[in-house]
Amino acid sequence: MSNRRSSRASRREGQARCAGAAGAAVAPAYVKRRIPFYAFLEEEGLVRLEAQADWLLQEIGIEFREDPEALETWRRAGADVKGTRVRAPAELVRQLCSTAPPEFDQIARNPSRSVRIGGRNQVFAAVYGPPFVRDLEGGRRYGAIADFERLVKLTYMLPGIHHGGFVVCEPCDVPVSKRHLDMLYLHMRCSDKPHLGAITEQSRAEDSVSMARILHGPEVFDRNCVILGNVNTNSPLLVDKVVTEAIRVYCGNGQGIIVSPFILAGAMGPVSTAGSIAQALAEAMICCAYSQLVRPGAPFIFGNFLSSMSLKSGAPTFGMPEPVISHYVIGQLARRLKLPLRCGGSLTAAKTADAQAAYESADSMQSTALAGANFVLQSAGWLEGGLCTGFEKLVMDADRLAAYQVLLAGLPLDDDALARDAYGEVEPAGHFLGSAHTLRHYQSAFHEPALSDSENVESWEERGSQDMQQRAFERWNQLLRDYEAPPIDPAVDEALKDFIARRKSELPDAWY
Amino acid sequence: MSNRRSSRASRREGQARCAGAAGAAVAPAYVKRRIPFYAFLEEEGLVRLEAQADWLLQEIGIEFREDPEALETWRRAGADVKGTRVRAPAELVRQLCSTAPPEFDQIARNPSRSVRIGGRNQVFAAVYGPPFVRDLEGGRRYGAIADFERLVKLTYMLPGIHHGGFVVCEPCDVPVSKRHLDMLYLHMRCSDKPHLGAITEQSRAEDSVSMARILHGPEVFDRNCVILGNVNTNSPLLVDKVVTEAIRVYCGNGQGIIVSPFILAGAMGPVSTAGSIAQALAEAMICCAYSQLVRPGAPFIFGNFLSSMSLKSGAPTFGMPEPVISHYVIGQLARRLKLPLRCGGSLTAAKTADAQAAYESADSMQSTALAGANFVLQSAGWLEGGLCTGFEKLVMDADRLAAYQVLLAGLPLDDDALARDAYGEVEPAGHFLGSAHTLRHYQSAFHEPALSDSENVESWEERGSQDMQQRAFERWNQLLRDYEAPPIDPAVDEALKDFIARRKSELPDAWY
Repeated sequence: MSNRRSSRASRREGQARCAGAAGAAVAPAYVKRRIPFYAFLEEEGLVRLEAQADWLLQEIGIEFREDPEALETWRRAGADVKGTRVRAPAELVRQLCSTAPPEFDQIARNPSRSVRIGGRNQVFAAVYGPPFVRDLEGGRRYGAIADFERLVKLTYMLPGIHHGGFVVCEPCDVPVSKRHLDMLYLHMRCSDKPHLGAITEQSRAEDSVSMARILHGPEVFDRNCVILGNVNTNSPLLVDKVVTEAIRVYCGNGQGIIVSPFILAGAMGPVSTAGSIAQALAEAMICCAYSQLVRPGAPFIFGNFLSSMSLKSGAPTFGMPEPVISHYVIGQLARRLKLPLRCGGSLTAAKTADAQAAYESADSMQSTALAGANFVLQSAGWLEGGLCTGFEKLVMDADRLAAYQVLLAGLPLDDDALARDAYGEVEPAGHFLGSAHTLRHYQSAFHEPALSDSENVESWEERGSQDMQQRAFERWNQLLRDYEAPPIDPAVDEALKDFIARRKSELPDAWY
Repeated sequence: MSNRRSSRASRREGQARCAGAAGAAVAPAYVKRRIPFYAFLEEEGLVRLEAQADWLLQEIGIEFREDPEALETWRRAGADVKGTRVRAPAELVRQLCSTAPPEFDQIARNPSRSVRIGGRNQVFAAVYGPPFVRDLEGGRRYGAIADFERLVKLTYMLPGIHHGGFVVCEPCDVPVSKRHLDMLYLHMRCSDKPHLGAITEQSRAEDSVSMARILHGPEVFDRNCVILGNVNTNSPLLVDKVVTEAIRVYCGNGQGIIVSPFILAGAMGPVSTAGSIAQALAEAMICCAYSQLVRPGAPFIFGNFLSSMSLKSGAPTFGMPEPVISHYVIGQLARRLKLPLRCGGSLTAAKTADAQAAYESADSMQSTALAGANFVLQSAGWLEGGLCTGFEKLVMDADRLAAYQVLLAGLPLDDDALARDAYGEVEPAGHFLGSAHTLRHYQSAFHEPALSDSENVESWEERGSQDMQQRAFERWNQLLRDYEAPPIDPAVDEALKDFIARRKSELPDAWY
């Protein structure tokens, strides 16, 4: 035991150094927002949406299926439970939600990369869930474990990304029953940024929590949130056992959970944005309340994922004005509940990292950032409505994430920013290029994007007339060439490998 | 005289019909904003910026060069004029600014396309100024009058664009001394949306005003703003005679003027965003004050154009977070002055309509729209930092402009939007696809973009795996095939042609 403690101590020293190691992203671990929130709706509108959510909770009710334990918990808490339908007084639900922390830390294995989630803090995490990947050279294909590894390395390298997320792509060449183990190991070994765990089955959630306990050591694990699960409700108004079991495993172990109603308005919710926002509010509130019944004070992230649809085909659309509106409104509603919010991301329906992908992602992500989302899954790499992770898209989005962080930092207005002294040097009709004020600030005055080409057309043509996608291809390949793994305590690494070997030997290969 | 009046009367009838004519854009003439403004800075910060602008006006002063008449006007108004330096009490400048209308109408020759500028109204105008054009087939080349004509037709066809602007590209194959006449005629004949006039020389401004008087008839002209000029100050703190003459011609004739400080921070203003915003405020205020000295009550648009720069090369950058911040702040400052604001646009340094162009344009334009800009020049078509008009970029940006208009319209929260009745029909875990509420709203629930492809990858591949730029190429070509000129009174058309023929015979061919 003393042996383990000292090895963790030396590991921590290694981590402190590694923040500056070659190849690692050196950047703030998360955003401390300094600009005000935008009040898109006035009080009256917010109250209307809340009243609708309360009505759904009390009158329509929420289905809790396949999980008698959850129903029993609700019964004991004082809800009206008929069959699998739970109708809970809105006051009870709100009271339960009030025990969830307004903000909390997720500890990373490198302490300098720990993130604070909630309040005025904003954390940008990578794409989550796509079965396919695409890059300029390899085209579109099923994701493989080799892709997964490269994507984790890139999320580690890219300074605009704070958090690795989890399923950066599905590693489809590994049996479903075992892939969570390999995915967890790659996040833990190839990156030192925080990440999420598995939720698809209770045992996989338990494996995630067990591996996090090994990685961080039991003392750190027991006193902190070091891992979270991310689950979706089954909208409309259905919470299945994947959700309740994940809540029990993560929150029951003192860890955190993100629950997001995923609503394609017109299918899983009403075809109106207001109706779908209210439904999402009700669904997220009941899940937060359940998490607090499992363990009062458990870290809970209030999730929201609302999409519009094409009126021509019924296909989901992204980056459209209705979800942009929903970001601002759900931001206001989450703050009234004093809960950390997950919403938005760099979302698009585009198949490649073309102009459509960029317009849609920018409109989606700028509003996500301005709306005050505290945890942004899907902030980089998403294509095809979430079916595909783009390697070029990942580095392109990450470049823009860095720009949004400058926006969120606000406008310095001190005397030096007002530059009165410069006007003593520069006459009207002169220029500021050589002024002392300019020379003093030249190096740091503006955000310097990695992938935007601002040169004249002649220089751009001389360098091969590359569009942004081609430059992004070069950048991610260069990042991988420069990659160096962050240090890890060999004893911890060994313990993780032992755990994985044991679990793999216990589990059958299964592809579903 | 009675003859002219009746011909104008019949023309008006023609215009009323033409709003629905084949090929014409059928859409609201401008945006009536229903969402709140975003208070990016608090009172204290705004006061600091205003104090700095006042200090610049009073202590540093503004140069008015090459124009003794303007200096004499300032002297008579009570300013301290030494040589060409004008120092004016901030109180005097603010008092003069207060006589400019907070909002005003610009009458279009088709009354259904007249726009209201200022207050909660927002007008999106096309790209202005590029000497080059680019399209997928023809590549990059100097703009020609044939390009200019096609671009005017497209601005007329595209429903996201409210206003034609003026120099949609430079028609470089027409002598500089005469091209303003051809450009004006094409705007007047090929479109019935409002547009701007020439400013590069006093006589060209006068020609613009004369042609507008012919187009609208003297009664409409004398009682309304039917045309505006758009000029830039010569930052830092220099107002040359191009500006003062344009103000005298346009405002002296009861028409409007836009004056925009164009500041590349670090060159024409301090390298800090705050410093450059304050300088821009001072420059725009003094020009507004001058316009009101020329004619109290003249329509004035408070312009702003602030760019950051690449720290590597000094090249201007666009779509970066610093100008995004400036949009929000200048919006607040303009509203405190109760002046209509021009700022922002779909700006980018990209050479083609690739992902860089889209990311930068979206970030620039979404913030422009949210910031409450009342008149947005450069809202569609801009490439290469304004050196090039892109045909594909024009239709792509216009598609996004339509989306921002949905955002600005806000969130309906009436009973129907909350869809309580749908929950009587749809059980938890059901779906809303066939519900009466969905069927009632299916056709109009969501913004339907023209150029975003939301289909699955298989359908997209079947249609040739086209990226957005390729789809945009097809769209603008199809729009031009569908184009029908809006009707015009033949007598007015004849009068315009006569005027142009006479002026061309008076003017030498000059290429500068």
